[in-house]
Amino acid sequence: MKISDTVVKHLLATWPVARLATLNSDGSPHQIPIVFAWHDGCFWSPIDGKPKRTGQLTRLDNVIANPIASLLVDEYDVDWTQLWWIRAKLDVTVIRLDEVNPETLEQATQAIKKLEEKYPQYESTAVLREPATILSMRPTAIMSWSASRVEF
Amino acid sequence: MKISDTVVKHLLATWPVARLATLNSDGSPHQIPIVFAWHDGCFWSPIDGKPKRTGQLTRLDNVIANPIASLLVDEYDVDWTQLWWIRAKLDVTVIRLDEVNPETLEQATQAIKKLEEKYPQYESTAVLREPATILSMRPTAIMSWSASRVEF
Repeated sequence: MKISDTVVKHLLATWPVARLATLNSDGSPHQIPIVFAWHDGCFWSPIDGKPKRTGQLTRLDNVIANPIASLLVDEYDVDWTQLWWIRAKLDVTVIRLDEVNPETLEQATQAIKKLEEKYPQYESTAVLREPATILSMRPTAIMSWSASRVEF
Repeated sequence: MKISDTVVKHLLATWPVARLATLNSDGSPHQIPIVFAWHDGCFWSPIDGKPKRTGQLTRLDNVIANPIASLLVDEYDVDWTQLWWIRAKLDVTVIRLDEVNPETLEQATQAIKKLEEKYPQYESTAVLREPATILSMRPTAIMSWSASRVEF
């Protein structure tokens, strides 16, 4: 069944992790787990200080070349009657904080504040690394499914 | 850092959930959480009796049209020094059990046995629904990353 709009909103505001799928230059899909905050109708995910596999991030190269992506927020449970997922089609904008106009900078600053509120881990991990970059991911469609009624 | 081959093997044999990304007909990525078993160098995921959003599954349509996919196995932890992921590029084969040769049927039967061993939930949920179909997903590349050494 579809998850109610109220519960979707709650889950997107509070769920700690999502999986982001972008497109490689050969058209194949690429996935990575990400942290995110929901702000102003978009998912926001910073290029933060958590250790990374390499300095050059595939997710960034991919969305710069092709902004179409997908985000999956879901919970696995050994009780399969408790399974649910929320999936969004995304149009991704890469925001370099040193290059944007004041309005976008203000939006990004608010999103970063939400990330810091959501993740106490940012007290000891930088929320941004140089060059300060955040992904703003606007959903063009959101679908949801749950095996049974999701409540909080 | 890269996760050791031994630990990757252990995680792929035991981890209960993965996220599968396939390609929609318009080239955009599509994601779904899946259960899977690792058998004979492939990930196997059945079209099982768990409730689905619709009868016609996008993941099936997608891999029939384009067998290139991505699988992500990862764990989120509030302690960010414990984060890890394993990502595979996949070449997916859709196996209809009523249409395959005896050798493939035997392979699929062994994979289904592993799924039933891995998931006690299949005692009360059908491991296959009609028409009996399982995805055999051969990795063409496997990458891994962890914030610190992963041990079991």
